[in-house]
Amino acid sequence: MAVKLVAKPGEVEFPKGMEGVIANESRKSYVNGLEGKLYYEGITIQDLAEHSSFEETFFLLLYDRLPTADELAILKHRMTQYRNLPNEVYELIESVSAGYLAKPMSVMRTAVSMTALFDEAAEEETEAAFEREAIKITSRMATIVAAINRVREGKPIVQPRADLSHAANFLYMMRGEEPDEFDTKVMDVILVLHADHGCNASTFATLVVTSTLADMYSAVVGGISALKGPLHGGANQRVMKMLNEIGSADNVENWLADAVAKKKKIMGFGHRVYKAMDPRAVILHGYAKEVTKRAGTEDWLVMAEKIEKFMIEKLGQKGIWPNVDFFSGVVMSSMGIDDELFTPIFAVSRAAGWTAHALEQRKDNRIYRPRFVYVGPATQEYVPIDER
Amino acid sequence: MAVKLVAKPGEVEFPKGMEGVIANESRKSYVNGLEGKLYYEGITIQDLAEHSSFEETFFLLLYDRLPTADELAILKHRMTQYRNLPNEVYELIESVSAGYLAKPMSVMRTAVSMTALFDEAAEEETEAAFEREAIKITSRMATIVAAINRVREGKPIVQPRADLSHAANFLYMMRGEEPDEFDTKVMDVILVLHADHGCNASTFATLVVTSTLADMYSAVVGGISALKGPLHGGANQRVMKMLNEIGSADNVENWLADAVAKKKKIMGFGHRVYKAMDPRAVILHGYAKEVTKRAGTEDWLVMAEKIEKFMIEKLGQKGIWPNVDFFSGVVMSSMGIDDELFTPIFAVSRAAGWTAHALEQRKDNRIYRPRFVYVGPATQEYVPIDER
Repeated sequence: MAVKLVAKPGEVEFPKGMEGVIANESRKSYVNGLEGKLYYEGITIQDLAEHSSFEETFFLLLYDRLPTADELAILKHRMTQYRNLPNEVYELIESVSAGYLAKPMSVMRTAVSMTALFDEAAEEETEAAFEREAIKITSRMATIVAAINRVREGKPIVQPRADLSHAANFLYMMRGEEPDEFDTKVMDVILVLHADHGCNASTFATLVVTSTLADMYSAVVGGISALKGPLHGGANQRVMKMLNEIGSADNVENWLADAVAKKKKIMGFGHRVYKAMDPRAVILHGYAKEVTKRAGTEDWLVMAEKIEKFMIEKLGQKGIWPNVDFFSGVVMSSMGIDDELFTPIFAVSRAAGWTAHALEQRKDNRIYRPRFVYVGPATQEYVPIDER
Repeated sequence: MAVKLVAKPGEVEFPKGMEGVIANESRKSYVNGLEGKLYYEGITIQDLAEHSSFEETFFLLLYDRLPTADELAILKHRMTQYRNLPNEVYELIESVSAGYLAKPMSVMRTAVSMTALFDEAAEEETEAAFEREAIKITSRMATIVAAINRVREGKPIVQPRADLSHAANFLYMMRGEEPDEFDTKVMDVILVLHADHGCNASTFATLVVTSTLADMYSAVVGGISALKGPLHGGANQRVMKMLNEIGSADNVENWLADAVAKKKKIMGFGHRVYKAMDPRAVILHGYAKEVTKRAGTEDWLVMAEKIEKFMIEKLGQKGIWPNVDFFSGVVMSSMGIDDELFTPIFAVSRAAGWTAHALEQRKDNRIYRPRFVYVGPATQEYVPIDER
């Protein structure tokens, strides 16, 4: 170890936030930030959004290849089987979500953690058990978020149905009525787009937890905890707040001029890895057209497009482009989804990536234990309290 | 970025488990692994174990200096004030701990997460709020673990007392009777010794979560999740299993000969950072003498000392020495503490370090987002399911 581990603040140089540091090898996804491309297992995100489903994408991430029809049917069956939650978890969600006090992400973090307490297999230490827990937890995340949504809306919790796809059942449990094909496709696309994204902070938190050989619930709870932070999840919520603040398409120019003058941050732009257009933003922009038309919320889209044009002209050359969060808020709000649910829905999707990465980590594990540069006081005597 | 981010497995070299990688600067603690020394803020762990208390050590870690008498009194008062849990959390612990099915660490992870749902200040985003939550959560960890212990033993939960120190109140809630001065001192030392230890995996998990600007509960839940894994917490439990398997001091030589022949791992030795004697092991060895004498469990100590002597002679030159876990199990078992509680007690102590590091991270934050080397398939077409 050539690095000086005791130093003055700023004396030792290192990349803040571990930018550019290699955490591990992975075969799950690849973000080509310079060209604005995203692949899961070498397949473009465009192909997956167009042709695949959340279940198939989950299979791809878990097992590193696309499933046969039979294999996909088996995974779907397993996910369906696990959809229901222990009664105690429904009761918890009912008792804490109604008052709108506890944030949905905190309820979700607790509900996932609590589900483990009623799962006899939660602590089983075999590879088969970890795989089963990955599928079980990923399946149940949707039920947890839908239940939180229902209680927040003052409506009865809707039990899952076994005859619907993951996306359709999720919307069904959220709304209490079966979604049409178009809405189902849009939700499926949202879930596919957010399922994995390299070594993002929540996936990394999942892996740090996994690297101690903790159980799958602990790993996912670690992921949820990290996603909860506003620097990770929640940007789409802030985009919607911005659009609602602007109020109408006519006001965009004035609002932007004012924002530039006051050096306000425009939400939904820029990304640590992407220095080009985020391909997920392009896909969601496409869906936003039909979704806003059906919902009569075209004004949001016009506002977003005006802001996008302005920002690309102004900052595109500097590598600041719209990211996935810029259009996802418009899409979900137009589908009638409360903005407090945006990050929990992100988690419903990202659970696929978290669990797939956790299983990958376990195959060739080493505990994550980096170092600090110690910049505190030099050796000092303990001074008794009456002499301080 | 000079590193090749798309490669064949093994093609790009990087330190597995981020060994030697700098995560950040920190002024909290320094582990001098080569000399077997540990300092919190420049003060040796020996001085702190002898003269300090958990509350004072917590102050030191939080504010980077020892408190005056008044400051210490204020922190103690604040910790005392927060000791009680919401009724719903006691009820959860009662409903899931009695059957011995759910692991205490899973119950703890859930209980801490759930406590946030009844804490109106949990989501407040000011520095004062984060500091308050750090103190609140660290205080309550003891109440949660003691309650889990009581329910596991089939006994009524004991409410905290305001007139006792953190260590004394913890033992009081665990046992239902006030501990004597000696037992209080031993528990206090255990809590001081485990309070911080550089960039260990659970502290690092706490920081990855914190770096997204998630709340303090999420950060601590991330720490608990990582500590739960057997590569991090739980080694002292395995030391006790080993001693119980050996059965008596007479059997140590035979057991060791057999263990060497079968290349069994001897628990409680070796550490990623220490290549010399872990100073915490020396301190706990000292206390183990009196504790085992009082409890009539001297046999455990004799066994441990024989194993220690054998191992140091055999492996000391290779840098493999007893670590903190080697004697802590003997001490806690002799105090009548169930071995399933060892890791939760570790968490009661390490909460001080987790929260202090989280506050430090927030002062100069950047989200942790390292990279993977992508080693998956090259670009591939999406093959429709009926053609697979």
